Amino acid sequence: MDIGTLTARLSEAGQSHVLQFWDDLKPEEQAEMIQDLEGMDFKEINRFFKNAMETSGQDKQEKIDSRMEPVPREVLGSVTRDREFLKDWEDEGLRCISQNKVAVLLLAGGQGTRLGVSYPKGMYDVSLPSHKTLFQLQAERILKLQQLAEQQHGTKCHITWYIMTSGRTVDSTKEFFSRHKYFGLSENNVIFFQQGMLPAMDYNGKLILESKGKLAMAPDGNGGLYRALGTHRIVEDMERRGIACVHVYCVDNILVKVADPAFIGFCVRKGADCGAKVVEKTNPTEAVGVVCKVDGRYQVVEYSEITLATAERRSSDGRLMFNAGNVANHFFSLPFLKDVVNTHEPQLQHHVAQKKIPYVDTRGQLIKPDKPNGIKMEKFVFDIFQFAKTFVVYEVLREDEFSPLKNADSQDGKDNPTTARHALMSLHHRWVLNAGGHFIDENGTRVPAIPRDGAAGAGTADVSQNLKDGTDLPIKCEISPLVSYGGEGLEKLVSGREFRPTLVIDETGVHELVKNGL
Amino acid sequence: MDIGTLTARLSEAGQSHVLQFWDDLKPEEQAEMIQDLEGMDFKEINRFFKNAMETSGQDKQEKIDSRMEPVPREVLGSVTRDREFLKDWEDEGLRCISQNKVAVLLLAGGQGTRLGVSYPKGMYDVSLPSHKTLFQLQAERILKLQQLAEQQHGTKCHITWYIMTSGRTVDSTKEFFSRHKYFGLSENNVIFFQQGMLPAMDYNGKLILESKGKLAMAPDGNGGLYRALGTHRIVEDMERRGIACVHVYCVDNILVKVADPAFIGFCVRKGADCGAKVVEKTNPTEAVGVVCKVDGRYQVVEYSEITLATAERRSSDGRLMFNAGNVANHFFSLPFLKDVVNTHEPQLQHHVAQKKIPYVDTRGQLIKPDKPNGIKMEKFVFDIFQFAKTFVVYEVLREDEFSPLKNADSQDGKDNPTTARHALMSLHHRWVLNAGGHFIDENGTRVPAIPRDGAAGAGTADVSQNLKDGTDLPIKCEISPLVSYGGEGLEKLVSGREFRPTLVIDETGVHELVKNGL
Repeated sequence: MDIGTLTARLSEAGQSHVLQFWDDLKPEEQAEMIQDLEGMDFKEINRFFKNAMETSGQDKQEKIDSRMEPVPREVLGSVTRDREFLKDWEDEGLRCISQNKVAVLLLAGGQGTRLGVSYPKGMYDVSLPSHKTLFQLQAERILKLQQLAEQQHGTKCHITWYIMTSGRTVDSTKEFFSRHKYFGLSENNVIFFQQGMLPAMDYNGKLILESKGKLAMAPDGNGGLYRALGTHRIVEDMERRGIACVHVYCVDNILVKVADPAFIGFCVRKGADCGAKVVEKTNPTEAVGVVCKVDGRYQVVEYSEITLATAERRSSDGRLMFNAGNVANHFFSLPFLKDVVNTHEPQLQHHVAQKKIPYVDTRGQLIKPDKPNGIKMEKFVFDIFQFAKTFVVYEVLREDEFSPLKNADSQDGKDNPTTARHALMSLHHRWVLNAGGHFIDENGTRVPAIPRDGAAGAGTADVSQNLKDGTDLPIKCEISPLVSYGGEGLEKLVSGREFRPTLVIDETGVHELVKNGL
Repeated sequence: MDIGTLTARLSEAGQSHVLQFWDDLKPEEQAEMIQDLEGMDFKEINRFFKNAMETSGQDKQEKIDSRMEPVPREVLGSVTRDREFLKDWEDEGLRCISQNKVAVLLLAGGQGTRLGVSYPKGMYDVSLPSHKTLFQLQAERILKLQQLAEQQHGTKCHITWYIMTSGRTVDSTKEFFSRHKYFGLSENNVIFFQQGMLPAMDYNGKLILESKGKLAMAPDGNGGLYRALGTHRIVEDMERRGIACVHVYCVDNILVKVADPAFIGFCVRKGADCGAKVVEKTNPTEAVGVVCKVDGRYQVVEYSEITLATAERRSSDGRLMFNAGNVANHFFSLPFLKDVVNTHEPQLQHHVAQKKIPYVDTRGQLIKPDKPNGIKMEKFVFDIFQFAKTFVVYEVLREDEFSPLKNADSQDGKDNPTTARHALMSLHHRWVLNAGGHFIDENGTRVPAIPRDGAAGAGTADVSQNLKDGTDLPIKCEISPLVSYGGEGLEKLVSGREFRPTLVIDETGVHELVKNGL
């Protein structure tokens, strides 16, 4: 494309200002700019902007509240309320896995900006005794599941792992997997693809220059998944492999049960084309989106869209009426995913995210705004729930399955490396206890099952304080996913035994580490 | 008492070592030591030790698990499940208050050691916009309740406030109330009394010297209340005043609904002699004691006494079976309290709290041990539940009523001044919204009802991050208890209005404070 064509196309779209510094650019910068811009459909981008702004401009809140209905019991499966079916669902899931019908799809396009690192979040080490990264934990859970399915069905099998990166994370992610030899997985079954990018726009719909020759760009949201699946012909790859269903999840949840056979089995047994895993929201003002029906169709209503009155509504059993907290763990049947990619995706509108976007002013000076000056346009992975014919919801326990890593440790007390590490160690501590193991302190005394956590109720503080004498907790305990996917198979290793933390159980055996200041 | 008698009494009780440094003491130190010791019944203390150690030495855990039963629905009142009765209970409570039948009793014997201050916790200022202390918040809630009861019944009334201090907190507490003119309460209706102290003992039952002439002493636990009520003839004072029931609570809960009329009315309507306010425990390993039945009698089972298997048991509705989390808010009828003080208290055994207790060694050197070297003996306020004839449980919402102040801000993310302040401001924020008010940001845009809290669920993080652009929250809003006890009466002040935080509503009016870096 020459500069004349580009100028004309920008002009037609009302975006001529993008070239205002053209004459200041060096030839190689000009070439790069043309390369960046030639693939963009400016009219389409303008249309995205117009639609997104119109949608976000409506007073959605008042409308949504009156139209919201909770998830009906008949589409809900619950690990606490349907325990009699769990084994059956898990068996069904393992059967599907043993037939190579299950894929997992990881949304890993984001960088660890809030976490304070410049590399992909999946590469983060939360300082477990093993120092495994999130990617490694997930890889090893896949390995273990394959093994469990093989044991149960006597056939060799694999789970294909699709990993969606973005322009910002693709190289380092691929390099990381390659350097770690795919953590023991077969390279053929780990497939990377990139989500798209969209330019940021100011409130008037004008493209924003982050330097004289470069537009400000951002990934198009985790819902960019569907467009990317089309662009990179991923669904065709899935069909070729005989995949029947996909578990989609986010990279940042350290407890994620990748390809959770019970969840998959539940969805399959219910004949669902689309399913969402949720945790119970118990505090009305918790900042979590809730799965519900709006106008008879399922969707996630963001906490920011809901009035307090609606958030506080309760059912007769005392629970919050809208309590299906979204944890970004979804099930899609392949036919559904194919329909979405081929038919529905173009109907999805972008959401508007107001952002502080650094830009060059008319004199070419870089300005870092201190309040939002424009928008990024994003789609959300759950935007497609509305197209489901048979939608189901699967409720799990937060303490067993959900602890996202979002913030740096210094930032606040929530969702940081410390809470993630503690959540994993607390889960593994419980696995050991439930398998008949015990923990003892340095004096050889058995440690109570429930460790003090600083949140002791009033009137109980005295006791807790004394028993543990202020030691910080939880019990330090880590079990490799290669040994146990979900707590199974530990009896033979721990039953009746007493351990001093730090306890590490991995494929080489059971280890008590000396104090290491963890 | 002369030194000869003291020597003989100590010798009889096997505690002669207490005087090992007698000859090193100056005459005034000797006099002081005699004064400290002459009131002590060493044989009784030995008996306390023997009983406490025997009880704690038993393997209580295994026994308790099999004997525990949950609170039956028929003795439970719930703010979420019994909403149709709330108004009636509240009316009943206000009626009792209007007849001067209600007293409140504050357990304030502890110092703010874990909080990092040397003064009583009630004097702590968590940096609310008003900088009110916990004592002031409680005093103003009492004032407001008196006013509400007066308005409803047209009679002047008061709530008598009993405050149990300890030797360590008595002087500063009294001085603080006096300096603040009892926060507007009548001095006659604020009654201080001291809980007892007990000596610390080593594991062999020997008294511990913290210096050559002084025993290591500690308050005898919040259950020391009952002995102190007897010693100071408080029950008689209550009878004289015509008090019919008492609400007992701990000083450290910033949200405490002092003399909560709904709780009192519920207990009265149920004909209860003893009642406990609880919040739902939702995570099996939360470090909170649970109210339950053991061998058919009610008690609080500490989290440290329970096995994980029991903590994880669930009812068919999916809730934890033992989910009545104790928040140290109790109701006692006066006849019950009288029986406890006169009859049951001596039957109560002390609990053993292992502690690191500084001591002087045989050479007179002060040693600070780095692991527990002895015990303190304590009773718990809930030890008397077992004597109730009609016991009831009242379940309230944690976010509305329970946020204890235990730790310093730097220590960990839980139960500290920041979480206490946030809990109060979040509650008041919700009051404003529910009364029809709105909050706007610096651009005049309405702020969503649910603010981002850093705990956004995966898949919702993008949105939240953008909408609030990373601003920390909650909305800064404080409503004086003198204006509203529980959210009532705010419509006329806020309905249809828009506020920029910090919003402060107090007896002088509605104020929007300029940014103050809070």
